[in-house]
Amino acid sequence: MKHSYTTELVQNMLSGDTVALARLISMVERGNSEVHQILRLIHSHTGKAYRIGITGPGGAGKSTTVDKLTKVIREQNLKVGIIAVDPTSPFSGGAILGDRIRMQQHGLDEGVFIRSMATRGAAGGLPITVNEVIKLLDAAGTDVILVETVGVGQDELGIIKSTDTVIVILTPESGDGIQAMKAGLIEIADIFIVNKIDRPGADKFLLEIRNMLALGKRQEWWQVPVLATQASDNIGIDILYSQIQQHYKALRESGMLDEKRNQQHCEQFEKQIMHRINEKLLCVIDEGYILNKYIDGIRIGKFDPYLAADDVLRSGELFVALSNGLPDDVRFSTKNDGFGIT
Amino acid sequence: MKHSYTTELVQNMLSGDTVALARLISMVERGNSEVHQILRLIHSHTGKAYRIGITGPGGAGKSTTVDKLTKVIREQNLKVGIIAVDPTSPFSGGAILGDRIRMQQHGLDEGVFIRSMATRGAAGGLPITVNEVIKLLDAAGTDVILVETVGVGQDELGIIKSTDTVIVILTPESGDGIQAMKAGLIEIADIFIVNKIDRPGADKFLLEIRNMLALGKRQEWWQVPVLATQASDNIGIDILYSQIQQHYKALRESGMLDEKRNQQHCEQFEKQIMHRINEKLLCVIDEGYILNKYIDGIRIGKFDPYLAADDVLRSGELFVALSNGLPDDVRFSTKNDGFGIT
Repeated sequence: MKHSYTTELVQNMLSGDTVALARLISMVERGNSEVHQILRLIHSHTGKAYRIGITGPGGAGKSTTVDKLTKVIREQNLKVGIIAVDPTSPFSGGAILGDRIRMQQHGLDEGVFIRSMATRGAAGGLPITVNEVIKLLDAAGTDVILVETVGVGQDELGIIKSTDTVIVILTPESGDGIQAMKAGLIEIADIFIVNKIDRPGADKFLLEIRNMLALGKRQEWWQVPVLATQASDNIGIDILYSQIQQHYKALRESGMLDEKRNQQHCEQFEKQIMHRINEKLLCVIDEGYILNKYIDGIRIGKFDPYLAADDVLRSGELFVALSNGLPDDVRFSTKNDGFGIT
Repeated sequence: MKHSYTTELVQNMLSGDTVALARLISMVERGNSEVHQILRLIHSHTGKAYRIGITGPGGAGKSTTVDKLTKVIREQNLKVGIIAVDPTSPFSGGAILGDRIRMQQHGLDEGVFIRSMATRGAAGGLPITVNEVIKLLDAAGTDVILVETVGVGQDELGIIKSTDTVIVILTPESGDGIQAMKAGLIEIADIFIVNKIDRPGADKFLLEIRNMLALGKRQEWWQVPVLATQASDNIGIDILYSQIQQHYKALRESGMLDEKRNQQHCEQFEKQIMHRINEKLLCVIDEGYILNKYIDGIRIGKFDPYLAADDVLRSGELFVALSNGLPDDVRFSTKNDGFGIT
């Protein structure tokens, strides 16, 4: 039953049904057991969308830039997907909400699909969902996917790094340049934006960023540009878009685009394995029959939890349970899904 | 070699050497391979320290409260450990740094040990380290451990929930009460503080929090107090400390303290297993001999990463590799470490 429902949803999504798309995204976000099946079904339909990541500190003007950039891309009659990734903190303040509301001007445009996501799901699971949502948008026929993330932690950095063109936005605030360097943003940026260029110290800051870039290692096929913008007044957005197009061209001509994508597939492969073993591990722990005899002893203070863990890992029983019976959804895959490696 | 060095460090730490303590904390933070061994060595020395968790939105006055509370506890001649857990974002602004500097007034006091930590390590590993640092401080003879965390995500919530007395600090800002409820803070609070009580709307806010608490389920052995403080002027701190002592008394007399601790041990047991299987999994992935034949195919676009993952999980080869040879450190544990469960 579940199988045919999911297959139908995917079919509808592939033929342009945005309600099916939204439902599939929700399933992926919740980590439903159908997720692996969905990913298998859509994989061959992905790889066409161009992915742009936009990051930087709060208040730098990421949402405004995404907003203006969306307008320019829509003028080319390309379909745009926007994923706004927020850190999970419930105390984010009002600014983010304001940005989201502002972006809703595109909400009536059928060529724009907007989705807000938290870095990690409510279940606190592995933060693999953003990449999978990108894949869904891709399979649904989106031409350009803009991924925006406020704040930069390890998870967010990983998300942004997996996009094709990484844009780092800073403002001429004291210290932001140093923080960006410490956060590893200098290395991942394909395009630098210094936004709010009318602020005092902008020229000095532009110079600071250019000097930092000069210190880093250069790629022969791409020289990272540093653009000055005033996103709220639409200043510099056209140049930004043309730089994105040039970066895309450079990526393609150097063969880096294919390399990047294939690298991403390898990472997805490894993440899938880790994710599913962890899922299974949680099942085994929940079922309890292997761990209960230890837990009873720990609960009454008789066993040391660390020595007990040693014992479990030594016994091998857990690994048998892990390999015995794969997660539910795997049963759905038929023989001809495989590709004959043994 | 490694073994005897670690054992020596632990011995020194147990006899009060704070340099050894700091070094062990760094080892745990970095996720060194000696971590499991350290935890095994110290476990029997833990359980004496009282753990107080303090959380709430940025700017609520957490650090100031920790600072003033530390003073009161030090007057009882008790040793205090402070762990300040920051979210990993590099763009935290200046306020946090200011707080840390302010707290350094205790830096000259040998009875106070202060440590700042990021939620997740640089390696992006599982965020289990805070609990292990608490254990180290505990084993080192600290009487009271204050864990303060800015912002509330899933990780931070988990850290705070594992303390004995959970203090939630809010200010009379519009919406903070609702956010706290949404974030699940109402359920985890043992003591509520409304700080900056001189602000407008404070009375209304106190009422709001009390009403929210009245809606929730009550425990027979403890009625959550709502305290009004002005931490910067030391107002309400003595009452806070006496409430903490009363909560401790209630926890002990109801048997909840033992239950909570044993529950924590069970969770540590499960986390250890998950953590170490993941460590081993990363090793197997890095070594590559199982996954390489798939990865080569994925890299040239011949294999679908999701179908390849299915294949790996079906073959069972990975699970054999996982159970074959445990992480390095386990080899150090001798037979008589076990406790005879088979």
